[in-house]
Amino acid sequence: MSPRSTTASGRARPRRCSRPSSPQGADPEDGMDETVQVAVHLDEGDAARMRMALNNIANLCAHYAQAGQAVAVELVANGPGLALLRADLSPLPEKVAELAADGVRFSACANTLRGITRDEGAAPALLPAAQIVPSGVVRLIELQRAGWAYLRP
Amino acid sequence: MSPRSTTASGRARPRRCSRPSSPQGADPEDGMDETVQVAVHLDEGDAARMRMALNNIANLCAHYAQAGQAVAVELVANGPGLALLRADLSPLPEKVAELAADGVRFSACANTLRGITRDEGAAPALLPAAQIVPSGVVRLIELQRAGWAYLRP
Amino acid sequence: MSPRSTTASGRARPRRCSRPSSPQGADPEDGMDETVQVAVHLDEGDAARMRMALNNIANLCAHYAQAGQAVAVELVANGPGLALLRADLSPLPEKVAELAADGVRFSACANTLRGITRDEGAAPALLPAAQIVPSGVVRLIELQRAGWAYLRP
Repeated sequence: MSPRSTTASGRARPRRCSRPSSPQGADPEDGMDETVQVAVHLDEGDAARMRMALNNIANLCAHYAQAGQAVAVELVANGPGLALLRADLSPLPEKVAELAADGVRFSACANTLRGITRDEGAAPALLPAAQIVPSGVVRLIELQRAGWAYLRP
Repeated sequence: MSPRSTTASGRARPRRCSRPSSPQGADPEDGMDETVQVAVHLDEGDAARMRMALNNIANLCAHYAQAGQAVAVELVANGPGLALLRADLSPLPEKVAELAADGVRFSACANTLRGITRDEGAAPALLPAAQIVPSGVVRLIELQRAGWAYLRP
Repeated sequence: MSPRSTTASGRARPRRCSRPSSPQGADPEDGMDETVQVAVHLDEGDAARMRMALNNIANLCAHYAQAGQAVAVELVANGPGLALLRADLSPLPEKVAELAADGVRFSACANTLRGITRDEGAAPALLPAAQIVPSGVVRLIELQRAGWAYLRP
């Protein structure tokens, strides 16, 4: 709801990326017709690619913030890419938290989670920022159908 | 034509993914305006990525079947990804056949086939499900221009 | 301006890919509504992938030229993919020059360039065909928002 979030240091700061509650619509306050919407697909597990995906997101949020343009960004992690959002395996938990505080949404694929749970005998703990979606690829399809651009770093 | 296909066991079962005859239009019975259309791009040759692409497709077909939503899916294989559709090299021929029976279309890039034929001295045999398209990338462009979502696993 | 370019041998030849001056519009002569517009994303640094991206572009330009269809193609290089456009590192400088002469636009990400400059102590020299854009990912988003298809080889 609030356009501000609180950093670890306790100081409120403006959020640089808006976060619509659903692919169908951004918050009306965001001026939906004007909001730039970007889905980022991460399905590889190496840390360099994860880092690049997050740098891509940080760069585009910075660009649109400077331009005074609302932007909604959602990273959808599935397959080996889901490791980015695992509490025990993520190589970049602070960066995820920082971008989430800026309004970036992080979606974890439930199909992938089911496979991990089956293989490892227990469901993996996820980072606080992670939100589970029923299917990562369906999410990416629905976002595109709702007009979101697609990036595959 | 028939909305049903026959499994190895001989039992007819409903097809889970519709298969339009062209990017411009799904079968009218499918209710074209409502059909979810997804192009999947495969241009890498490692078996893990091929498996992930096919799992992505199986998951999205299952999702939309359960939702009662018509879906058209086409995997376009070019470059090293074409190996998925080679009779002599495919690591997943049964999975391809199963998804094809569900209505998924598998397109093999003729440009890539020409390169293979030149390098190997003979045209490679393809899986029965494979359909040759003049250019894999042109196919992906035309599908997007016709409103299909794009996934690059 | 001219629809023709000059080859190394000095003979003028028709350009096979149109090159609009901005994502918003192709040259009016191209018949904008009809121009096929394709953004190609390159963010990996291995030569085989670079070669595939350029082959993809050559194939699609040849296809549309033969079909008498105007096409605008822009390759956006960021991250490790930017090496394609570095004068000191590009494994395929002649191929880039040839496609640029055909009208393909090559965009180099300024964010990536800044990182290289910081790491190496000097800004890298780029191929003559390279044009710097403020952000590679923003460019890819804006092109998609303007109706361009997206390919990620």
